[in-house]
Amino acid sequence: MINSNIIILGCNSSLPTRNFHPTSQILYMRENYFLIDCGEGTQVQLIKAKIKINKIDNIFISHLHGDHYFGLIGILSTYQLLGRKKKLNIFSPKGLKNIINEHLKWSKSKITYPLKFIILSSKKSEKIYDKNNVNIYTIPLKHKIYTNGFLFKEKKKLKNLNIENVNKIKEIKISDYINIKKGKDYIKKNGTKIPNKYLTFKQQKPLSYAFCSDTSYYPKISKYLKNVDLLYHESTFLHKDNILAYKRGHSTSIEAAKIAKLSNVKKLLLGHFSCRFPNIKKFEKEAKKIFNNTIATKSLNNYNL
Amino acid sequence: MINSNIIILGCNSSLPTRNFHPTSQILYMRENYFLIDCGEGTQVQLIKAKIKINKIDNIFISHLHGDHYFGLIGILSTYQLLGRKKKLNIFSPKGLKNIINEHLKWSKSKITYPLKFIILSSKKSEKIYDKNNVNIYTIPLKHKIYTNGFLFKEKKKLKNLNIENVNKIKEIKISDYINIKKGKDYIKKNGTKIPNKYLTFKQQKPLSYAFCSDTSYYPKISKYLKNVDLLYHESTFLHKDNILAYKRGHSTSIEAAKIAKLSNVKKLLLGHFSCRFPNIKKFEKEAKKIFNNTIATKSLNNYNL
Repeated sequence: MINSNIIILGCNSSLPTRNFHPTSQILYMRENYFLIDCGEGTQVQLIKAKIKINKIDNIFISHLHGDHYFGLIGILSTYQLLGRKKKLNIFSPKGLKNIINEHLKWSKSKITYPLKFIILSSKKSEKIYDKNNVNIYTIPLKHKIYTNGFLFKEKKKLKNLNIENVNKIKEIKISDYINIKKGKDYIKKNGTKIPNKYLTFKQQKPLSYAFCSDTSYYPKISKYLKNVDLLYHESTFLHKDNILAYKRGHSTSIEAAKIAKLSNVKKLLLGHFSCRFPNIKKFEKEAKKIFNNTIATKSLNNYNL
Repeated sequence: MINSNIIILGCNSSLPTRNFHPTSQILYMRENYFLIDCGEGTQVQLIKAKIKINKIDNIFISHLHGDHYFGLIGILSTYQLLGRKKKLNIFSPKGLKNIINEHLKWSKSKITYPLKFIILSSKKSEKIYDKNNVNIYTIPLKHKIYTNGFLFKEKKKLKNLNIENVNKIKEIKISDYINIKKGKDYIKKNGTKIPNKYLTFKQQKPLSYAFCSDTSYYPKISKYLKNVDLLYHESTFLHKDNILAYKRGHSTSIEAAKIAKLSNVKKLLLGHFSCRFPNIKKFEKEAKKIFNNTIATKSLNNYNL
């Protein structure tokens, strides 16, 4: 089993360069491939990352600025050409369905696989997904237009029985297994407690990932980010441009690090870099002053949760 | 002065591969940079081809299948971010303006530079551009939806005077120069004819380029293509798939070569290759049986007219 990890398909902001890959990433979690944002060129990046496009059943669009979704129509068309049959869910703000329909109308095309748009409109965090051993919540961000981040949490798995020890307690019946797997101690008929840790193997703690882009510095979000294992936070500017960042609804590396520290996350990934700063190591260096476990992301790199 | 030439930005058809560059090309002609079609990723290809995006003032979209225009919205957004002031003309079938407006609406964005859509709807060839020493005409093609090719023709330039010889004929006045530059002979007062070729330098013949994609085999277009210097004709399939090509509104390499031969063009470029044929040299080899001066195009290559 591969652990949960994030694959960066693109982490540039909106102005194109020779190696321009606007925001898009794949979260692999509990055998799901969640596509988060989908800038222009995402489908080619998926091929380069060796991710089969058909493994994706859920797409999450943070907001309707082009560098976060212009690649979507291409992917939807490709699914059609490849004869997709499976359902595809798209979580996004209002409007994306209208845009896609306008494209389809003028090309006289149809999408014949089941395509469901889940429209996000709440200004409060809400649970939007509870399936396949994962819960997903929105994180309301502060940007020029309505924008959500997303919090992905592995559900707690049932524990594996230490069957050798279980068999030593003769009175345990198969019907008791479920409670033990859930983590309960076993109480013998004579009242003796058999601790759960004797009856089961140690289990890895469920992991969590939070995606926050685009947003200006918004400390309120830290309540959703408490103790997450991995936080991706936008860092469009270096801190010398913090006023510009605020005006444009973006954050600096220092601000991203402050959010990480405030939320007590384990690791911070930076991204959404403006092309005015070609040396992305500067973002990392700056953020590390506030929050040491920081990495400036690179396209086509993987990061474990 | 650089001669007219075509720069291929992309020549793949619709299914993405690792090196996927759908249809887009720049025609450099008489100091104009004409952008023809604009598949996903075109703006990055322009950077790789070292063409400054701001040199483009006219964009020609053949039809509204995604692999010919999904990159346009990204370019229009980039112009806005870069603070473009100059007018931009987009020649395209009906619908593109609606699509662009739908994108702008939901991102709460505006385009503030002058953007003019010239809607093409005629089923006959028409002159759509007559400026900057170039005439441009549509070429009605036969595809699944309304599609135009484009014929670009350099205008005849005024000839350069051979001033040494002109000065030898004392009675020639400055007011006579314009007729001589236009190619007329000079008739002296005594009735003697001074041939134009004595009074001017030899001039290069105006060049022409025709773009035909997407289309099924359609010999009728040869009347627009007569004697063009360079023809780009789609060749989605090898000839063994000619029935499939016809069904899908596309052509084979042999069919493209037949059009070139029928039209007596000087050189043929093939493109819009299906990803099922990774070896594009096969297209060239097949077409050469019918029309020898054929090249299978490659992304980021230049071809002189």
